[in-house]
Amino acid sequence: MQPTVNELVVEQFSRSLGNLKNILKKAQTHAQERKFDENLFLQSKLAADMFPLIKQVQISCDIVKASCARLTGTTPPAFADDEKTMVELFSRIDKTLDYVKTFATNDFKGYETQKVSFFWNPGKHITGHEYVISYAIPNFYFHVSAAYAILRSNGVHLGKGDYLGEMQWKAN
Amino acid sequence: MQPTVNELVVEQFSRSLGNLKNILKKAQTHAQERKFDENLFLQSKLAADMFPLIKQVQISCDIVKASCARLTGTTPPAFADDEKTMVELFSRIDKTLDYVKTFATNDFKGYETQKVSFFWNPGKHITGHEYVISYAIPNFYFHVSAAYAILRSNGVHLGKGDYLGEMQWKAN
Repeated sequence: MQPTVNELVVEQFSRSLGNLKNILKKAQTHAQERKFDENLFLQSKLAADMFPLIKQVQISCDIVKASCARLTGTTPPAFADDEKTMVELFSRIDKTLDYVKTFATNDFKGYETQKVSFFWNPGKHITGHEYVISYAIPNFYFHVSAAYAILRSNGVHLGKGDYLGEMQWKAN
Repeated sequence: MQPTVNELVVEQFSRSLGNLKNILKKAQTHAQERKFDENLFLQSKLAADMFPLIKQVQISCDIVKASCARLTGTTPPAFADDEKTMVELFSRIDKTLDYVKTFATNDFKGYETQKVSFFWNPGKHITGHEYVISYAIPNFYFHVSAAYAILRSNGVHLGKGDYLGEMQWKAN
């Protein structure tokens, strides 16, 4: 029983997006308690030329959306990057999770031979198999981690448990 | 053909550790060009109560080491966290990669039912299957991303390509 692409991309990415939403909610509560506008977090960055929080969340959502579409050979819906508030970012995450739910395990059959192309490397592709392992997974966690780190560096009280989420513990 | 645990944990984690070493080498070159001590990077952090670069690299290595050991039911070698220089961090990565190479694909047979325990949650475990998908993978990329972001926030000229590494492009 190897990990399936459905477990790695659909189920776990969805769980992680849920964790990201919880992290953003903690930032919202933090701002409310300190009586400042929660949306001030949205433009915060780790470096002047890195993406701000809002973009890290949008990209995290887009990787999940694109992974499902690319691996099933379908066209994803376009989401305008027009969020301006924390609450609108919650909706972006919800909308992404709703889209992911439209996929059944069987839709990913043959994912490994899908040709995955990027506009920035015309005429070339990688296989769906390589895309999952070497691109989608490392890239997705990069952006979720960046969102977490931006909020941590702003003093929001978060821990690794917020990032990893609940595990299914069993008694020994 | 689903992604195998060997591809996800042994091969891709090893590639990512190699990417991390390249990222650290770029930081080394950056320091040399600006004529400051490269080891000044080692204590840099994204937040006062997050781990510094040196610890992010040590943990990245340890997750790879622990994943291989836990999923094969073996005991990993103990690596003292005694690095003090960038060059010693390169050795830590190399030592980890050498250890990973001692595992054959077949060693991971039955990984999914291995009981994975943590000292901070005594009497409980998660299955090897859940450990790979929900713990080892998200946690590993968290720490590699943190190392990257620490160096980016210090002005080292890095891009996503350094983090993701080379893809196996094929002509359409």
